[in-house]
Amino acid sequence: MILRLDRVQVNLPPPSDPDPAGAAAVQELLGGKFGEMSTWLNYTFQSFNFRARQSARPFYDLLASIATEEFGHVELVTATINSMLTGASSADDGRAPGNGLADVLGVGNPHHFIAGGQGALPQNSQGRPWNGDYVFCSGDLVEDLTHNFFLETGARNNKLKVYEMVDHPAARALTGYLLVRGGLHQVAYARAVEHLTGADLMKLFPTPRIPTDKIPESRQHIERGEHLRLYRFSQDDFQEVAAVFNGPHPETGEELEVADVPHPVGAAAHDLPPQPVVFAPDYEPEEISEIAQRLRKQAGLPDKPTGLVSDDSRDLSAALATKTRP
Amino acid sequence: MILRLDRVQVNLPPPSDPDPAGAAAVQELLGGKFGEMSTWLNYTFQSFNFRARQSARPFYDLLASIATEEFGHVELVTATINSMLTGASSADDGRAPGNGLADVLGVGNPHHFIAGGQGALPQNSQGRPWNGDYVFCSGDLVEDLTHNFFLETGARNNKLKVYEMVDHPAARALTGYLLVRGGLHQVAYARAVEHLTGADLMKLFPTPRIPTDKIPESRQHIERGEHLRLYRFSQDDFQEVAAVFNGPHPETGEELEVADVPHPVGAAAHDLPPQPVVFAPDYEPEEISEIAQRLRKQAGLPDKPTGLVSDDSRDLSAALATKTRP
Amino acid sequence: MILRLDRVQVNLPPPSDPDPAGAAAVQELLGGKFGEMSTWLNYTFQSFNFRARQSARPFYDLLASIATEEFGHVELVTATINSMLTGASSADDGRAPGNGLADVLGVGNPHHFIAGGQGALPQNSQGRPWNGDYVFCSGDLVEDLTHNFFLETGARNNKLKVYEMVDHPAARALTGYLLVRGGLHQVAYARAVEHLTGADLMKLFPTPRIPTDKIPESRQHIERGEHLRLYRFSQDDFQEVAAVFNGPHPETGEELEVADVPHPVGAAAHDLPPQPVVFAPDYEPEEISEIAQRLRKQAGLPDKPTGLVSDDSRDLSAALATKTRP
Amino acid sequence: MILRLDRVQVNLPPPSDPDPAGAAAVQELLGGKFGEMSTWLNYTFQSFNFRARQSARPFYDLLASIATEEFGHVELVTATINSMLTGASSADDGRAPGNGLADVLGVGNPHHFIAGGQGALPQNSQGRPWNGDYVFCSGDLVEDLTHNFFLETGARNNKLKVYEMVDHPAARALTGYLLVRGGLHQVAYARAVEHLTGADLMKLFPTPRIPTDKIPESRQHIERGEHLRLYRFSQDDFQEVAAVFNGPHPETGEELEVADVPHPVGAAAHDLPPQPVVFAPDYEPEEISEIAQRLRKQAGLPDKPTGLVSDDSRDLSAALATKTRP
Amino acid sequence: MILRLDRVQVNLPPPSDPDPAGAAAVQELLGGKFGEMSTWLNYTFQSFNFRARQSARPFYDLLASIATEEFGHVELVTATINSMLTGASSADDGRAPGNGLADVLGVGNPHHFIAGGQGALPQNSQGRPWNGDYVFCSGDLVEDLTHNFFLETGARNNKLKVYEMVDHPAARALTGYLLVRGGLHQVAYARAVEHLTGADLMKLFPTPRIPTDKIPESRQHIERGEHLRLYRFSQDDFQEVAAVFNGPHPETGEELEVADVPHPVGAAAHDLPPQPVVFAPDYEPEEISEIAQRLRKQAGLPDKPTGLVSDDSRDLSAALATKTRP
Amino acid sequence: MILRLDRVQVNLPPPSDPDPAGAAAVQELLGGKFGEMSTWLNYTFQSFNFRARQSARPFYDLLASIATEEFGHVELVTATINSMLTGASSADDGRAPGNGLADVLGVGNPHHFIAGGQGALPQNSQGRPWNGDYVFCSGDLVEDLTHNFFLETGARNNKLKVYEMVDHPAARALTGYLLVRGGLHQVAYARAVEHLTGADLMKLFPTPRIPTDKIPESRQHIERGEHLRLYRFSQDDFQEVAAVFNGPHPETGEELEVADVPHPVGAAAHDLPPQPVVFAPDYEPEEISEIAQRLRKQAGLPDKPTGLVSDDSRDLSAALATKTRP
Repeated sequence: MILRLDRVQVNLPPPSDPDPAGAAAVQELLGGKFGEMSTWLNYTFQSFNFRARQSARPFYDLLASIATEEFGHVELVTATINSMLTGASSADDGRAPGNGLADVLGVGNPHHFIAGGQGALPQNSQGRPWNGDYVFCSGDLVEDLTHNFFLETGARNNKLKVYEMVDHPAARALTGYLLVRGGLHQVAYARAVEHLTGADLMKLFPTPRIPTDKIPESRQHIERGEHLRLYRFSQDDFQEVAAVFNGPHPETGEELEVADVPHPVGAAAHDLPPQPVVFAPDYEPEEISEIAQRLRKQAGLPDKPTGLVSDDSRDLSAALATKTRP
Repeated sequence: MILRLDRVQVNLPPPSDPDPAGAAAVQELLGGKFGEMSTWLNYTFQSFNFRARQSARPFYDLLASIATEEFGHVELVTATINSMLTGASSADDGRAPGNGLADVLGVGNPHHFIAGGQGALPQNSQGRPWNGDYVFCSGDLVEDLTHNFFLETGARNNKLKVYEMVDHPAARALTGYLLVRGGLHQVAYARAVEHLTGADLMKLFPTPRIPTDKIPESRQHIERGEHLRLYRFSQDDFQEVAAVFNGPHPETGEELEVADVPHPVGAAAHDLPPQPVVFAPDYEPEEISEIAQRLRKQAGLPDKPTGLVSDDSRDLSAALATKTRP
Repeated sequence: MILRLDRVQVNLPPPSDPDPAGAAAVQELLGGKFGEMSTWLNYTFQSFNFRARQSARPFYDLLASIATEEFGHVELVTATINSMLTGASSADDGRAPGNGLADVLGVGNPHHFIAGGQGALPQNSQGRPWNGDYVFCSGDLVEDLTHNFFLETGARNNKLKVYEMVDHPAARALTGYLLVRGGLHQVAYARAVEHLTGADLMKLFPTPRIPTDKIPESRQHIERGEHLRLYRFSQDDFQEVAAVFNGPHPETGEELEVADVPHPVGAAAHDLPPQPVVFAPDYEPEEISEIAQRLRKQAGLPDKPTGLVSDDSRDLSAALATKTRP
Repeated sequence: MILRLDRVQVNLPPPSDPDPAGAAAVQELLGGKFGEMSTWLNYTFQSFNFRARQSARPFYDLLASIATEEFGHVELVTATINSMLTGASSADDGRAPGNGLADVLGVGNPHHFIAGGQGALPQNSQGRPWNGDYVFCSGDLVEDLTHNFFLETGARNNKLKVYEMVDHPAARALTGYLLVRGGLHQVAYARAVEHLTGADLMKLFPTPRIPTDKIPESRQHIERGEHLRLYRFSQDDFQEVAAVFNGPHPETGEELEVADVPHPVGAAAHDLPPQPVVFAPDYEPEEISEIAQRLRKQAGLPDKPTGLVSDDSRDLSAALATKTRP
Repeated sequence: MILRLDRVQVNLPPPSDPDPAGAAAVQELLGGKFGEMSTWLNYTFQSFNFRARQSARPFYDLLASIATEEFGHVELVTATINSMLTGASSADDGRAPGNGLADVLGVGNPHHFIAGGQGALPQNSQGRPWNGDYVFCSGDLVEDLTHNFFLETGARNNKLKVYEMVDHPAARALTGYLLVRGGLHQVAYARAVEHLTGADLMKLFPTPRIPTDKIPESRQHIERGEHLRLYRFSQDDFQEVAAVFNGPHPETGEELEVADVPHPVGAAAHDLPPQPVVFAPDYEPEEISEIAQRLRKQAGLPDKPTGLVSDDSRDLSAALATKTRP
Repeated sequence: MILRLDRVQVNLPPPSDPDPAGAAAVQELLGGKFGEMSTWLNYTFQSFNFRARQSARPFYDLLASIATEEFGHVELVTATINSMLTGASSADDGRAPGNGLADVLGVGNPHHFIAGGQGALPQNSQGRPWNGDYVFCSGDLVEDLTHNFFLETGARNNKLKVYEMVDHPAARALTGYLLVRGGLHQVAYARAVEHLTGADLMKLFPTPRIPTDKIPESRQHIERGEHLRLYRFSQDDFQEVAAVFNGPHPETGEELEVADVPHPVGAAAHDLPPQPVVFAPDYEPEEISEIAQRLRKQAGLPDKPTGLVSDDSRDLSAALATKTRP
């Protein structure tokens, strides 16, 4: 079972200039063979299928913890794509019928507009859907962990390439963050293999052989120690990750650590504006709004929506910290 | 972001006779077009991509809550398949090389044994992988909710068929439970459409037109009111589901309700035994166990594993209730 | 069994400026999940597999009638794409070898030129092939009809988006027409569900919530009553559609009606010119023509081809009306 | 545009013993690379995309005529599969919940039961969906016709193999008929290539090199001349096929001929009984029947259903001949 | 460019009892994600795309050499499958029409019989086709080699599982041999990564953690030193493999070595008998034989076929050794 | 078994201006349905599965010989794509992080950069992976050869279209050469069918009906007689091709001939420069070079790399001719 928090792991820039071609490229990090859906679902299936988990508890706890963080990465990539697509449809009053999508004809992934509502899709940068063949789950612990190390290596490669290809601020903020956290997972799996076999994989870092701290957008996260700190993403469970996730970081020599809180405080998500040309959330969004308000009133809810969304005019971290109870 | 609890939504029977052919059929409920991966990922993507969510908060909260429950359904289906596969490999001492898989040649899904470690796969009953084309996310709220109602209808159909096809106790317990919870979601989406449009969908229930309470394995859950109660699956968030999820149940007329706890207490998962013929978790599982024990000691963890797994000799519900803090 | 008429359902504009990027987008309406191949083949399979059809004859007749119309929609979408691709290859004398396709490098769907002869393909807007997973055929009548209502809803969404994206006159004429006819099918399936269950789906119209009569290119067809009139597309059969297709139109309140002719008169298709760069129909098209003429003579056929093709210099409706014998 | 007749091309045996394994094999003739969906949709797309059709009219007419017949072949294969699946679910009163599908666990294509209502699917013998990559449509007339000859060759191969594999009477009647008609199409395309190029392909017959008249179930159709006679499947159009379809049959030397009626009289389809375990057409089929009867009455239709279905107690050919008006 | 030798790498048992179910399972080693097509085409593409190959020549030579050996592995797997399928069709005189395939209805992969001529297919054990997504070719040398190590690990896992599942003598001989050679490649890639990065991967062996010499059918090859010896599979090229492939074997400590001959002598392939029920190579195979003989005579070839095929009555190794000129 | 030569079949131009859009189009000739992977793997599988090969030796030898040549065609297409992609990433010092891929955002196939290292992929011009359904291998010799003739026909069509679409010098040199060799294979299969059946296919040439000698880049190869000469691509084997490959060329009437050398001398491949933005072969390519040099020294290899790569400053044909020993 999981519980969900209505927030994202890290603050992303608000929508700026639309970049549908860039959004199509960023899809690789979502639905590509090495995208976040793959890391998420690989580790999730491996944890579901883990046999004799009690006797190998530290490894099970590691898989479950990282799997759970990956949900948040998928969420961040979708938020980035959604942000980059905001404003890409252009119409005078923003309402069909007209030429509201003429500007994006031949640009980016046509499904972002025709199938979706200017929103992210479980597809790669070529518009091909993610599929279950991307999940590897042999049940052999050494082999699964070796796979995961390789998967994170490929994922790091793809993030670096997308960084080079897309300079939209949201894409850069995203990749800067994911490189740090993905790098940590790459280390975690290598260390787990080392513990199980006695092999020494430390000199494999970094692969690709560019240090993460060369990425300007990664540095702030490194400075906060996010390249060293594993979260369990659970209130009470998965306490044994510390038995596997320890020792020196292969690149910096600093000690790896398990966070004493279950998860980072994170940030409220941006509430992206309607895109009425694609009927998201409706041809006449204000009608939805009125209905929702009426329903809220009938249910005895407060006048103002109870959820927190990003509001550049004030700092929400205090509000979020109150809600979060590690 | 999500937090994970190391437990499942409902207690399933412990492994009994292996049933690899049945396990292959149950895969439809996992990786089929109408399987739990589809419900899970459809609602998850719809919630990620939800535009103007603040002004339509009750609907966003509904999608997020149900999406989060679906993770637990995926977990239950995998647990069922894993249980049904346990014991399907047969060798004298349980170790290669030998004829340990000869009995399953031509039986069920060969990937359960060759690709996996007698574990669940993101595939359907034909061994075809789940893929992203099964996700519908138009961003148009009325349309997405209409889709979701239809998706739950198809899912209910498939569960009933698998019930008819597979009489293994784990499969029956699974479908009995999922029919109740899936039925609730079917109602939830229909009600949401009604609120948004004014249409009356209540006479569409039940579809397929067999009442759920005819299913013996569903009755205990109906008696506990699980056909009426929506959980938010969040400590603090998604409070506005009550604005949408309300009114009479279309079949029984009882009032729908939002649970005052974030999630059901659930049950500890079964710790399934190693299957060394397929190297799950290893050719010599006891070595993994020794390594794990040594690592635990080095990390200063208690002598006994800290996680809870199902133990038929004692009742764990008190222990779980202590951990859970709704 | 079917009989074929050598004509299309509605007149489309003759080829004008080529628009290969637009043609690639229009492919979504042909081979996409919600394209006309999907509507056509869903209803066709449902009618083939219909059990106990005699005792549910009105529903069977409805499915068969609409399925048959959809063939004509597929035909119209292909005609539109073919028209938009005409002239996209450019060479001095129109013959290889040269740079005849250089202008379309990187534009639109490369298979339109490399695999095809500047012709339509069973693919979507991303160049992915239509596949049988898009067919839903549970055999459960309520469920199949619910699906069909949803399918038409998604199809309407996609048509509106393509309208916004592509302003080529052929694409606009196409979508204007299909929105009217698809809207009628959406109503038909909703009504069928209402008859079977007693539910009231009328307030679901329109979805997406933009009225069809806002589309300028749809208005002429609405004025002719094409939004109200179901054709049986059969000389003698499927007489019982009237038992299902009746009552008020959900948006206008006008009475739905079954046409007293089997099909609309339609229009002769445009005979699109050769595109010798892609060898369609040949590197030297005139040779084909000579061979055909010789064969016709040998067979005792008249000097002039017997088929009717669109000829902007004269009105063919009388000729067609003579041939058609409703 | 097409018109549909509520009948099939040839009479098939009524349901007898169910044969779900055989039905799974017969799917190759429906949704396989060389199945009837492929022949149908290849020729249909080729006819839609045919450029300069007026100047190559005989070839266009040939493609359109054969394409139209192929619809009827798809219909026959589905009817066969549906017939072979009838009775495969077994329950005391034929109603869920129970073990109604236990007998088919691990037998045949699980989607026949879980996804479908004991009905045919657009899939091949491995349960993989038909897809648009099976359509070849280069627009180059010589090449398309060469392809079609090869496609019919592969189709003939597959039919002969299915004949050898499945001895269910419906499957044998089906393959016996299709071999004769498919063989005719193989000849038609070879002859068309000969007319266009001057090549002599006659010695390629038969391929595979077993004469069709060795198939007992084919002989009755050969005796009726169905191996020689092309139908236009159109009331008025496609008159120029005679310019291409002529000359001696490559195996027998008999003259090929164009039928002077648009289509064979055909036969009424069997009305297959409900399979309530899979909800086809409903959990309580008699309710559907009552609703239909009420709707018919309200619409002023006769008391008895107007459609013709196969009734082994009387000969329907006179009734069908009355309706058909060649 | 490649040159082909008309022989296989190792002698396999002649056809014995047919085992179509086993043949379907062995397909995983051919067309599965970790099958020989994957190893073959991964390394082949990596060698084709190798940039700056002159300055990294030892690594390029290693990839090219191993890639070339993998062709021979694909050949061996197909030979095994073909052998296991021989005799699976049963008819009195071995000729259609009849029930020649009735025995294999529902057994194994139906495409072995319907699509193929009782021959191997580029598919996995589920009948799904191999596809290009199985090729990883990032161009980053460290990453590609890491991938290859992982790929060989997965391949070893799958071979061990197929060994456990299928006890047909041909399958056992195949897996026994491939485990030795694949194990060598696993070592080779690990060593290459070690040379490039300084990491120590030796303790990862064996994975799965069963030593290869526990497999009875592997021992003869180990005794011949085939677990230590890399062949260049080229007369003159790829001389620099010795710079990478050296040092101790991780399991045995023996020195790795580069063979001083380009390839093992190998063995003549079995000439498998016709299977006329599936028309392989023809309905009347003797006609093919007569035609071939006539053509040979016309071409002035000797009376007896010039190729060598396995002939259990005599030892061909001398003949092969004469032909091979290392 | 195969042996590999470290050279390509024909000299291609060195890298010039990058053309990523063109490279994406050329992918059709590699991984498309009619690309070189298809010809290669079709004939390879057909030769592996050939039953009764001894008694039909000339046909077996023909398949094996042509299959072997096709490897070299795949190699040439990849070399062309790699050459066209060289230089497409642009950064000041060629090293991440930066905007090194910004210029190719939205241009060509994104996987060329994100998944690959500016290298060829087993995909078609739409970025879809090659798959095993493109292999036809019925085992029926007449049918397989008929298929191969058709496959070569489609391949010729696609090459001509790519020629028209892409005018990059490498693409033109490639297609000019492949049209000549593919044309030869088209003739070879037609002739084989003629020998087996007695049919006369010569008038089918050319299809598409443009003579190859109209292609300027093809003429030099025709002048060298490469349109007439089949190589066995084997030192000793496949001697019986001469029994099938003989008689007049269908277009020119010249005699077909079997080369008296096993393969053309060919040319050294270009050693393409590193592309450090995509880490091919590394972020710091010089480090790889130093490691390689050290390893070479340790292995006692000469100071200079032993492999031959294209060096525009001198003629390597003498060096190659020395190595090659026909």
